[in-house]
Amino acid sequence: MQKPEYYDKLIRNVPDFPKKGIQFKDITTLIKDPKGLENAVNDLADSFKGEKVDKVLGIESRGFVFSTGIALKIGKGVILARKPGKLPAKTERAEYSLEYGKDSIEVHVDAISKGDRVLVIDDLLATGGTFLAAAQLVEKLGGVVAGIGCVIELTGSLHGRDQLKNYKVVSLVQIPVHE
Amino acid sequence: MQKPEYYDKLIRNVPDFPKKGIQFKDITTLIKDPKGLENAVNDLADSFKGEKVDKVLGIESRGFVFSTGIALKIGKGVILARKPGKLPAKTERAEYSLEYGKDSIEVHVDAISKGDRVLVIDDLLATGGTFLAAAQLVEKLGGVVAGIGCVIELTGSLHGRDQLKNYKVVSLVQIPVHE
Repeated sequence: MQKPEYYDKLIRNVPDFPKKGIQFKDITTLIKDPKGLENAVNDLADSFKGEKVDKVLGIESRGFVFSTGIALKIGKGVILARKPGKLPAKTERAEYSLEYGKDSIEVHVDAISKGDRVLVIDDLLATGGTFLAAAQLVEKLGGVVAGIGCVIELTGSLHGRDQLKNYKVVSLVQIPVHE
Repeated sequence: MQKPEYYDKLIRNVPDFPKKGIQFKDITTLIKDPKGLENAVNDLADSFKGEKVDKVLGIESRGFVFSTGIALKIGKGVILARKPGKLPAKTERAEYSLEYGKDSIEVHVDAISKGDRVLVIDDLLATGGTFLAAAQLVEKLGGVVAGIGCVIELTGSLHGRDQLKNYKVVSLVQIPVHE
């Protein structure tokens, strides 16, 4: 298990993206490093070793990278949570709030079977809205959330973890934000 | 190496998506199958065993799934080709034609170093426009295209492979389309 500082060094901070005042945490520098990618995947997989996991759900689109790695590592399949209109077959949808307005994500209804234990993965936990919507989708479809995992957790004023207190949440590095 | 029929069976055909008359090839049924995901990643990685590969480039966003798997398998990093405005740091951009109009993709300029041999991965080869744009980006940034790999190749009237004749192109299953 790598220390948070290891990940902190491999993640690039991009000031004022996508808009002025936002410090964007860029994982492309982590995943282009062969060891960085491998360690992130292994550390997330190992963090849920005690849990029974049937499927790994990746949230669009950076979540696809880490969820696929974990799925291959533990020998399970990967399922995708996508923006509306992207998945071609029958979907279930959940809404979440943005700073202004709402957005939503979808999962194929046949992606999850009754009782499936699903690990929910994205690159970043900020307000927790997307993760909560994904967890609700898993439950709507009869699955059980085996855990929530991300590389970066923004701590401080966002309180993302508070929204997810019903679940086991793992992050590899915690970065304070002041908004 | 699995036969094309193996992949054909695991890929779902969704008629009239995203619009009437299109037979959409849905890889979500392949990747939710643990063996399907593993075999697709291994077969693509094995197809390029003879090539020196330094990095694996995934094209947004289903390409992220297979590129990450291959990168982990061969012990390399993964880099992302994304729609404009998604990558936070300095990018290079390439345009490609759609049925009506144009679109473009971007890669971080520091994703590729001079001489890097880059494997370019997406789920599907149709007209070849996106793959060609990605290959041009690799070369613009001083890299060399080590190969082009996808799960599905649409054959028939689209002639995608003709656009990519300068490169080694591998697909796991070939599906004829009649447009």
